[in-house]
Amino acid sequence: MLGTGFIARFYAQSIVAQRSKDIINVVYSRTLASGQKFADDFNVPHVITDMIEAINHPDTETVIISLPNNLHEEAVLACAKAKKNVLCTKPLGRTAAEAKRMLDAVEKAGVFGGYLEDLCYTPKFLKSCASVKAGSLGRVLWAKSRETHPGPHSDWFWDKEQSGGGAILDLGCHCVEISRNFIGKDILPVEVMCWADTQVKPIDAEDHAIALVKYQNGAIGQFEVSWTFRGGLDLRDEVMGTEGTIWINNFLRTGLEMFTTGKGADYVAEKAESNTGWLFPVGDEVNDLGYNHMFTDMFSSYEEKKDPRETFYDGYVVNAVIDAAYKSAKTKLWEPVKLDVWRGKTGLTKESNLVEYDADNYLVKEEMTHYGAKKLILKNKASGKIEERILE
Amino acid sequence: MLGTGFIARFYAQSIVAQRSKDIINVVYSRTLASGQKFADDFNVPHVITDMIEAINHPDTETVIISLPNNLHEEAVLACAKAKKNVLCTKPLGRTAAEAKRMLDAVEKAGVFGGYLEDLCYTPKFLKSCASVKAGSLGRVLWAKSRETHPGPHSDWFWDKEQSGGGAILDLGCHCVEISRNFIGKDILPVEVMCWADTQVKPIDAEDHAIALVKYQNGAIGQFEVSWTFRGGLDLRDEVMGTEGTIWINNFLRTGLEMFTTGKGADYVAEKAESNTGWLFPVGDEVNDLGYNHMFTDMFSSYEEKKDPRETFYDGYVVNAVIDAAYKSAKTKLWEPVKLDVWRGKTGLTKESNLVEYDADNYLVKEEMTHYGAKKLILKNKASGKIEERILE
Amino acid sequence: MLGTGFIARFYAQSIVAQRSKDIINVVYSRTLASGQKFADDFNVPHVITDMIEAINHPDTETVIISLPNNLHEEAVLACAKAKKNVLCTKPLGRTAAEAKRMLDAVEKAGVFGGYLEDLCYTPKFLKSCASVKAGSLGRVLWAKSRETHPGPHSDWFWDKEQSGGGAILDLGCHCVEISRNFIGKDILPVEVMCWADTQVKPIDAEDHAIALVKYQNGAIGQFEVSWTFRGGLDLRDEVMGTEGTIWINNFLRTGLEMFTTGKGADYVAEKAESNTGWLFPVGDEVNDLGYNHMFTDMFSSYEEKKDPRETFYDGYVVNAVIDAAYKSAKTKLWEPVKLDVWRGKTGLTKESNLVEYDADNYLVKEEMTHYGAKKLILKNKASGKIEERILE
Amino acid sequence: MLGTGFIARFYAQSIVAQRSKDIINVVYSRTLASGQKFADDFNVPHVITDMIEAINHPDTETVIISLPNNLHEEAVLACAKAKKNVLCTKPLGRTAAEAKRMLDAVEKAGVFGGYLEDLCYTPKFLKSCASVKAGSLGRVLWAKSRETHPGPHSDWFWDKEQSGGGAILDLGCHCVEISRNFIGKDILPVEVMCWADTQVKPIDAEDHAIALVKYQNGAIGQFEVSWTFRGGLDLRDEVMGTEGTIWINNFLRTGLEMFTTGKGADYVAEKAESNTGWLFPVGDEVNDLGYNHMFTDMFSSYEEKKDPRETFYDGYVVNAVIDAAYKSAKTKLWEPVKLDVWRGKTGLTKESNLVEYDADNYLVKEEMTHYGAKKLILKNKASGKIEERILE
Repeated sequence: MLGTGFIARFYAQSIVAQRSKDIINVVYSRTLASGQKFADDFNVPHVITDMIEAINHPDTETVIISLPNNLHEEAVLACAKAKKNVLCTKPLGRTAAEAKRMLDAVEKAGVFGGYLEDLCYTPKFLKSCASVKAGSLGRVLWAKSRETHPGPHSDWFWDKEQSGGGAILDLGCHCVEISRNFIGKDILPVEVMCWADTQVKPIDAEDHAIALVKYQNGAIGQFEVSWTFRGGLDLRDEVMGTEGTIWINNFLRTGLEMFTTGKGADYVAEKAESNTGWLFPVGDEVNDLGYNHMFTDMFSSYEEKKDPRETFYDGYVVNAVIDAAYKSAKTKLWEPVKLDVWRGKTGLTKESNLVEYDADNYLVKEEMTHYGAKKLILKNKASGKIEERILE
Repeated sequence: MLGTGFIARFYAQSIVAQRSKDIINVVYSRTLASGQKFADDFNVPHVITDMIEAINHPDTETVIISLPNNLHEEAVLACAKAKKNVLCTKPLGRTAAEAKRMLDAVEKAGVFGGYLEDLCYTPKFLKSCASVKAGSLGRVLWAKSRETHPGPHSDWFWDKEQSGGGAILDLGCHCVEISRNFIGKDILPVEVMCWADTQVKPIDAEDHAIALVKYQNGAIGQFEVSWTFRGGLDLRDEVMGTEGTIWINNFLRTGLEMFTTGKGADYVAEKAESNTGWLFPVGDEVNDLGYNHMFTDMFSSYEEKKDPRETFYDGYVVNAVIDAAYKSAKTKLWEPVKLDVWRGKTGLTKESNLVEYDADNYLVKEEMTHYGAKKLILKNKASGKIEERILE
Repeated sequence: MLGTGFIARFYAQSIVAQRSKDIINVVYSRTLASGQKFADDFNVPHVITDMIEAINHPDTETVIISLPNNLHEEAVLACAKAKKNVLCTKPLGRTAAEAKRMLDAVEKAGVFGGYLEDLCYTPKFLKSCASVKAGSLGRVLWAKSRETHPGPHSDWFWDKEQSGGGAILDLGCHCVEISRNFIGKDILPVEVMCWADTQVKPIDAEDHAIALVKYQNGAIGQFEVSWTFRGGLDLRDEVMGTEGTIWINNFLRTGLEMFTTGKGADYVAEKAESNTGWLFPVGDEVNDLGYNHMFTDMFSSYEEKKDPRETFYDGYVVNAVIDAAYKSAKTKLWEPVKLDVWRGKTGLTKESNLVEYDADNYLVKEEMTHYGAKKLILKNKASGKIEERILE
Repeated sequence: MLGTGFIARFYAQSIVAQRSKDIINVVYSRTLASGQKFADDFNVPHVITDMIEAINHPDTETVIISLPNNLHEEAVLACAKAKKNVLCTKPLGRTAAEAKRMLDAVEKAGVFGGYLEDLCYTPKFLKSCASVKAGSLGRVLWAKSRETHPGPHSDWFWDKEQSGGGAILDLGCHCVEISRNFIGKDILPVEVMCWADTQVKPIDAEDHAIALVKYQNGAIGQFEVSWTFRGGLDLRDEVMGTEGTIWINNFLRTGLEMFTTGKGADYVAEKAESNTGWLFPVGDEVNDLGYNHMFTDMFSSYEEKKDPRETFYDGYVVNAVIDAAYKSAKTKLWEPVKLDVWRGKTGLTKESNLVEYDADNYLVKEEMTHYGAKKLILKNKASGKIEERILE
């Protein structure tokens, strides 16, 4: 485990959770004290303050990178060199170029590489994704993901040098990959339009952004990210298809609602912006945020010698989409997604929007009237005329 | 009352509702049968098949236009000529040019003109708007409105000639005005970026669109509209401010939930796409969609000789924003909103995002740590350096 | 209008609301100042401090009683004597005996008598009731109503002498009538089991109670009432039938959700226990609590010379059920509901629970298995044996 | 593992889930085919068709009983005899007498005994319970649990001989223990009032029941159980305390909502009564129903040589409460809970409901008025008079 911060602790809570057979053998931290505290909390035998040494330690089988964004590449390259499996937190790189170098290094070294995109592993997301794949929504038209909260916990996020960007890179990486999963990972993201601004925080990076991502089959991805939202951690996804829709609320409305005047003893509510009034905790944060299912997929995939759901290649595609978003936010133009390597389908076109009704007409809509009859709206193929027809 | 269709009936149900003192004296319909049926249902003494005659009828005090979009201008001009008050359904025009001519005619004639934008009158919207005006959300950063459903009921909507456009014109007009109300009607909408497509329906107009509207003070409006949504009528608004957020669900989740196997007698659920399984009816559709409060505002404003909340000028601004959206969908560029007349504030700039902490630092974030201490993230004014500081 | 308190103001807001043609001509209050303030707010020409005089005033056509419970009888008898129509707030009496005398007086005088049970007029309730009557839930098995909040606003409620009781009388009267409406007003309530206690408040009356009401057809009514609930006004109803269920949330979760840090200007949220954090206001309180539809029904029924939905007789039945509840809370026994007059069906028995499957078997359950087959659980008519049967 | 039915599979999915180190060594089933299928699905090396043999198998360290209710006692006694640890599914016995014999056997044998009450281990329940224990709700006044669905899957549930009872025993056992956890396991349940009926199903046992359980400290528990609910699996808990409330929805409203027309490919929704329209799946059923946390507690408690959260003694208390409920349903009286052994607090009395305001007065209520003043309702200690006092 490289790193001992907020995300490293979440990972550890998941890895050594419940009845897990997995263990953390080595932890690396720049400062011995942090490393030691982490080791105490999670029963880690080795605390090391030199990253390369930690990677090369004989008890290190798989390296988990939980470091600030600017340190990912160095760590990944070191793992590749040491021929160690590597799991890297999100975003993979600060740019697609960085991500590409990491991807290449891992693939050339032939080690297992996993992209730790936890929000593509939440139980609700996995269930939804399965439904979408099974066709319950028909053809996917639009997939949106929203992640907003009042800003990250650690100082390095706020420093563009270390983080590489603001809310887009920090949160948008989740959203882009969520949309890709719903729309299909083999569908090429073509171009991106992005609005971004620094509305509230005294920082250089953006604290609020909205973007649209056009896919080659005509589907549209959308993300809404912000570090200025007030009210907690807002994690919602929506998908629309020709035959249905899915609404996911991962965090703020999950069926657990508590009101407290705050007069009770020393209770402090988790992650909420206040600890009185109506509060909406989740039951099991580690599980509900996808960490358990993510590490199960990672370790089990490795054991079964197959790719995990989220690979370094996925991380690279996400970075490419985000690069286009940043460029678009500046140029105010739809910017193409630049991918040196594309491993999905090619040459797709938008599906036809013509629904045959009979030899002469297309079907526009079919509905029940107030009085129980069936009403059709048809379009004549030849004339293009719209016609209403009531069937008894 | 000009027109006897779906919307005319909704208006009538509201106008003569409950203990109302208002009455409908004259109804105009091209076909006598429709007019007569409407007259029977709502106790209207006069049925007229000539529009001009209906407008000029001595018992006509205020004309309500519930006609297809392509007939609004003609009707408004006739009202102005006849010096009759006029309330026009949304959208005011098919284009800003049309809307401008209607606005000019009404103002020149000196008659009362009201813009029937019902979704800016739903009880939840009015309450939310009042809260926002009272400052409960701080400075408004973003206001989104979403209206999607499986497509309109009448044939003329699907014919671009008569309707003037698709989901943007039909539904986006609501959304634009909702955002304007939250952000401030006196704040200039500057430019628009819009994606639109015809993804499902065999029509010329768009059946799905998403747009961003930039305001002069840096706030951002957003709309999501579609005629391809499956699941009912999805009417949701969201507003984010520096001090809070509001989520409105006007239709599909309002606290009334019903499950039925459908084996019970001849029940048919309203507006839902099915009549078995889990259904989510609203309690009082006419009220919940804003019709009651809208006509109260219109008639009472007229009696009190003041402007209603929604005027022809508002309708014109909405059309101007929509014109820019349509243009943007074609050019793929951010398109300026072109307003010949602007009656709000001018020369606004984005508010500063610098929050003073002390002489040397800006405040980035303040939060409670897990262990109950107060943590600050500060930015040095001179160096720009980010620093974490823990207060006991 | 007799009274100028909290409930009188709600009534007035509804009666003179929006475009109403109804007016309040006379207001009675013990103190001139209160009467005058009320008159100013609602345009009432006559303020009178003598109740009998107010009732007999020539401009008084219908008397609305908004007085403490201990004054209902005197006021109703005076109205009957003066041959004035009378609408009385809930509960009708403090006991069934009081209610019976009021019922008799009104019926003997031949005046219009309406029971102002607003929660049987909320839009959601009316819609639900219509669905239940239409058979969408099949046979009703159970109907529960819950009303809890942190306690009433005025002092007299807390004084058992004036109020006649605590949460059961104040809130249970709503709940009993809601259940009766769902189960059928013509179905005899037979007996009541009630638990009641004074758990928190330093008063003589109960501040928390739960009761079951058995009906002659085997259906069961339930109420949960409390003056000790923390979190706002909790108004929820549930109905279960053989073919479905309905869940109503009238107040705390209606699709309007607001988070505010409270740093915004002087905003105060309505009815909530706090004005920061997550708040759940309703859109239009007067409408959502049923006042508009109630007075529409009352005045229109009078004009059309028919009974309103809620009559003095209904108020009497409710009091009889509540009498039984109070008795049960003391005796700890199921207590019979004592009704001197019963105007509904008699001699009902519980419906059979035997569902014919074929000549030899009753059907217990039919379900889909995981693997898509149809599974039946049957009971042999002769042997009583339970059997599982899988159909392909 | 004894048994291979619905619940055995749920247990197995949890025990060998994700990265678990635990394994199932032996499975017992009456029929070899069922045993073999189970063994294939969960990698179980030994399939045995003789229960005693399975218990005594050298690879059996802990026995998990997933058998019909009428077989629990025999299995537990055999485990005790074989000195094997034993985890028994709910309810422990069909009666308190059965449960007591099991408890005695396990304690005498000195083996580890765990009561598999999964709904006291759902993530939401654990989080809520921790909040309640931390005092966030103040003193607990009432704790309700509701479990209703359209009836169990297997035939033996419907046969009173094997099951020992209907919805009360099957579902009420969960509810009783949930309330006990919230109110305090050391608080004596004193007496029970229960209504039960067979309203719909052609069976001998009850298919619908509601009960109140009075605790020695004045708190009240409540359960609502049914096999006749239509709409899916309704699992809701509520707790009210002097300082707050908690609402838990474990299954039907958890933040995942899907609409589907059903035209998409062969999708079948889980556990729902239909597979079209609005559906509400849970993300991770095994986790959300508490199985993971339950087995973690069981196995870890055993390793750490401490009692699990839910013991055989808890199962015995639950059976004693249910016995009283069944008796009450027949006698229509509040029936005492008969416990041969009580290991909690004794001699508790109801807490005082007097809240001191000053030397002369008790505080009844404190609230904000519309106009922002603080209003007090006080009760004079000497005279008992209620007084309203406005503070500026």
